[in-house]
Amino acid sequence: MHTLYGNAPSGNCWKPAMMLHARGLPFRWIEVDILKGESRTPGFLALNPNGRVPLLQLPDGRTLAESNAMLLHLGEGSAWIPSDAYLRAKMYEWLFFEQYSHEPYIATVRFWVKHAGKAEEKKQEIVERTARGYAALGVMERALGASPFLVGERPTLADIALYAYTHVAPEGGFSLDDYPAVRRWLDRVTSVQGFVPMPFFG
Amino acid sequence: MHTLYGNAPSGNCWKPAMMLHARGLPFRWIEVDILKGESRTPGFLALNPNGRVPLLQLPDGRTLAESNAMLLHLGEGSAWIPSDAYLRAKMYEWLFFEQYSHEPYIATVRFWVKHAGKAEEKKQEIVERTARGYAALGVMERALGASPFLVGERPTLADIALYAYTHVAPEGGFSLDDYPAVRRWLDRVTSVQGFVPMPFFG
Repeated sequence: MHTLYGNAPSGNCWKPAMMLHARGLPFRWIEVDILKGESRTPGFLALNPNGRVPLLQLPDGRTLAESNAMLLHLGEGSAWIPSDAYLRAKMYEWLFFEQYSHEPYIATVRFWVKHAGKAEEKKQEIVERTARGYAALGVMERALGASPFLVGERPTLADIALYAYTHVAPEGGFSLDDYPAVRRWLDRVTSVQGFVPMPFFG
Repeated sequence: MHTLYGNAPSGNCWKPAMMLHARGLPFRWIEVDILKGESRTPGFLALNPNGRVPLLQLPDGRTLAESNAMLLHLGEGSAWIPSDAYLRAKMYEWLFFEQYSHEPYIATVRFWVKHAGKAEEKKQEIVERTARGYAALGVMERALGASPFLVGERPTLADIALYAYTHVAPEGGFSLDDYPAVRRWLDRVTSVQGFVPMPFFG
C-alpha cells in the first residue's frame, strides 16, 4: 500500500491523494503539521531531504517528492495523460507553469493569509505576489476560453494540478469575478470521474 | 525545422538548445532581449501568453513553453528518460525541484547580480534567496554523494535541467567550495555525449 505524508489544507498534498483515489489505489495518510515544523525534523528529512510535503512512499518503501512528479508517476498508463505527443507536451507545460508561475503566488498568499497568520507581516510581499497570481489566472482564463480543459477536450493531470490552488484562491483574497472561463472550468473539474474534494482528509 | 526563441545567457534557454542538439535536430535560434522587454511585446505574447523565454516552435508551427516541458518532449524515446518507472519518477522529481527550489534562487540571484545590475536594489532579497539557493545545493550534494548522476548511474534530463544554473551559480556569488560532489558532477556532465557548452549561441 502507498503511504502519503501530507498536510490536509495543502493543495499540493491533495493532488496525489486525488490521483491515488482516481486510480483505485488504497493508501495510508500521515498528517504532517508544517506549522509545527514537522516537515523539517531529522526523521522527516531522512525521507525527503528537501523538507517538504507531500512525500509519497511507494509500497516497496521507496520515496518520491514533488506533487506533480507524483501525478506523472501515478497517472502513467491512464487517460489522465494524453496519448498525443503534442497534447502531452502541453500538459507538461501546465505542470511546470503551475509550480513556477501560479503556486508561488496564489498558494503562498493563501498560506500566509489563511494558515500562517502573516497577512500583516507579509503585507507588501502579498501585494506583489497577488499581482503575479492574477497574471497566472489571466493565462488560464485565455486558455480556458478556447477549450473546456487546459489541454483540449479532455481532463488531464494539468487540470488536477491547477485546480488544487485555483479553487481556493479566494481564501487568499483573490477574486475570480473577472475570470468566468476559470470559474466554469472549476465546476467542470468537480464533475470529472474520480474527483474527490479537497481536503481529502480533515 | 524547430525554432527556439531564447536569450543567450539564460540557462532555461540553453536546456532545449542542448537537447535539440543532442537529438540531432537542426533548429533556428531567435534572440529575445528580455532586458528590453522583448518577451512582453504583443507579438511575443501571442506566441507565449505567459511572456517568457524559451519558447519552442515546432516544425508545424505549434508552440510549447516551459523549458523542462521542452526537455520532456524532445527527450521522448531516448535514453535521456529512464525506462524504469521509479527512476523516471525521480527524474520528474528533480525537474520540478529545479523549477521550484533551485531556479528561483540561484538563477534569479545570478540574473540580478550579473545581468540586471540590481545587486544593490535587491540586496536584502538576494541575502534571503542566496540562503535558499545554498539549501538547494545541499540537496544536490547529498544526492550526488550517493550516485554519479542525479538519477542513478546514467545521465537523464534531470542532469541537463540542474546543470543549467548550477554551473553558473558563482556568477551570482555562490561558492561551490563546500559542494565537492556537485563540482565533480558538473565536470561529469560536460563529458556526456551530445553535451554543448552554455551559452549555445553568443
